[in-house]
Amino acid sequence: MSLRQMKKRRSIRQYTGQDISDSLLNELLETAARASNTGNMQLYSVVITRSRTNKEKMAPAHFNQPMVTAASVVLTCCADANRFVKWAEQRKARPGFDNFQIFIAAMIDAIIFAQAFCTAAEEKGLGICYLGTATYNADKIIEALSLPKLVVPVTTITVGWPADTPEQPERLPLEAIIHHETYTDYTSDDINALYKAKEELSINKRYVKENNKETLAQVFTDVRYARANNEYFSEAYLNVLKDRGFID
Amino acid sequence: MSLRQMKKRRSIRQYTGQDISDSLLNELLETAARASNTGNMQLYSVVITRSRTNKEKMAPAHFNQPMVTAASVVLTCCADANRFVKWAEQRKARPGFDNFQIFIAAMIDAIIFAQAFCTAAEEKGLGICYLGTATYNADKIIEALSLPKLVVPVTTITVGWPADTPEQPERLPLEAIIHHETYTDYTSDDINALYKAKEELSINKRYVKENNKETLAQVFTDVRYARANNEYFSEAYLNVLKDRGFID
Repeated sequence: MSLRQMKKRRSIRQYTGQDISDSLLNELLETAARASNTGNMQLYSVVITRSRTNKEKMAPAHFNQPMVTAASVVLTCCADANRFVKWAEQRKARPGFDNFQIFIAAMIDAIIFAQAFCTAAEEKGLGICYLGTATYNADKIIEALSLPKLVVPVTTITVGWPADTPEQPERLPLEAIIHHETYTDYTSDDINALYKAKEELSINKRYVKENNKETLAQVFTDVRYARANNEYFSEAYLNVLKDRGFID
Repeated sequence: MSLRQMKKRRSIRQYTGQDISDSLLNELLETAARASNTGNMQLYSVVITRSRTNKEKMAPAHFNQPMVTAASVVLTCCADANRFVKWAEQRKARPGFDNFQIFIAAMIDAIIFAQAFCTAAEEKGLGICYLGTATYNADKIIEALSLPKLVVPVTTITVGWPADTPEQPERLPLEAIIHHETYTDYTSDDINALYKAKEELSINKRYVKENNKETLAQVFTDVRYARANNEYFSEAYLNVLKDRGFID
């Protein structure tokens, strides 16, 4: 994909329902597997959901976001130390992979794979959407997909042929996310300048109004990512990491 | 980048030393910022290191891997809730972003950005290498880059014009990493079949011999990713997450 195309991309949440062939899907997966990974251990696995029944089974874990059942294919990308450990134990080796640092490496592997897959899929004209809910209700996904110990979902991607052409959402100006040589913390004036365009967008003003809030930030902190939910799902995910063997 | 090119990619660890212009670097960063992120909150920051002094200052944190000082540009990709929290507090909002789930979302954002950047850089002929050491000595990197609370390094990328054309490393066959509908755990025969080609590669046989080991798996479990190191760096990273405010 050219940079010009990459710059025009946006997530797609509505799909035509047209099938994605096995050969195309395999080509995308083969391509994504060429992305970097930790020590070439490939500490990730991807569960492909095509069946309608299984999409419906997973949907509640994703708060019934309609993309799950609308997508042709759902990819659940998992941090996976299980395969490596099974290999090592079969080869007279004594793996010490039941810890947080290995989870972090495996999570990085899974996300790098996911993003390489998304770029490849978009190059072929497909539309994708990431679902952050994979880490909220990981326990339910583990059950739905029969994931063993040392395998934990880290992100879910819905994939299909685009049925709409949504507006590209805004991004903060580049200087908001980039620091040169060392991190320069944001002054109050910096914050005002960096968030001005975002706050003035009519779509964001509408969100504020629809949610009966005073500021756009309140939509995020009170409605979408409220403390109580963040803390509840933090504990839930830490419990999953403990239960799956990545934390003591 | 075409799928054909993406399939041929490999990490590059030797660079010509030729400069990467600001305009090219900015184009790559702008492109990467178009990748997906959590709720369009952009919970990440990237610290760009160009100065030789600062590369040398960071090198020990990366176990003096030569790519750090050889690269034209070093990118330290960070999970960052600091900017969002500063914005929210300035807008009469009460953020609850000091928790593990927000760290996970921010880490995913940072890795997606990193991988989108890498694909864009490779499209332009640059070579990249990920350094997993960013999560090993995160405390040293935090100090070197003056990262504030709620900002934690998750990966480092070295970037430069390629000075070598290494062989493409092997990957496991696709069926090793893909599961259909549910996770099918690996039998002993599966493991033998899936790792056969990898174990028979002459380069991997050489690693076994050079390390005086009996099996390739032992090179990973005894030398490269030994239990004691994994556990030491697990505790170190958890302590960083506590110190930076993402875990109680």
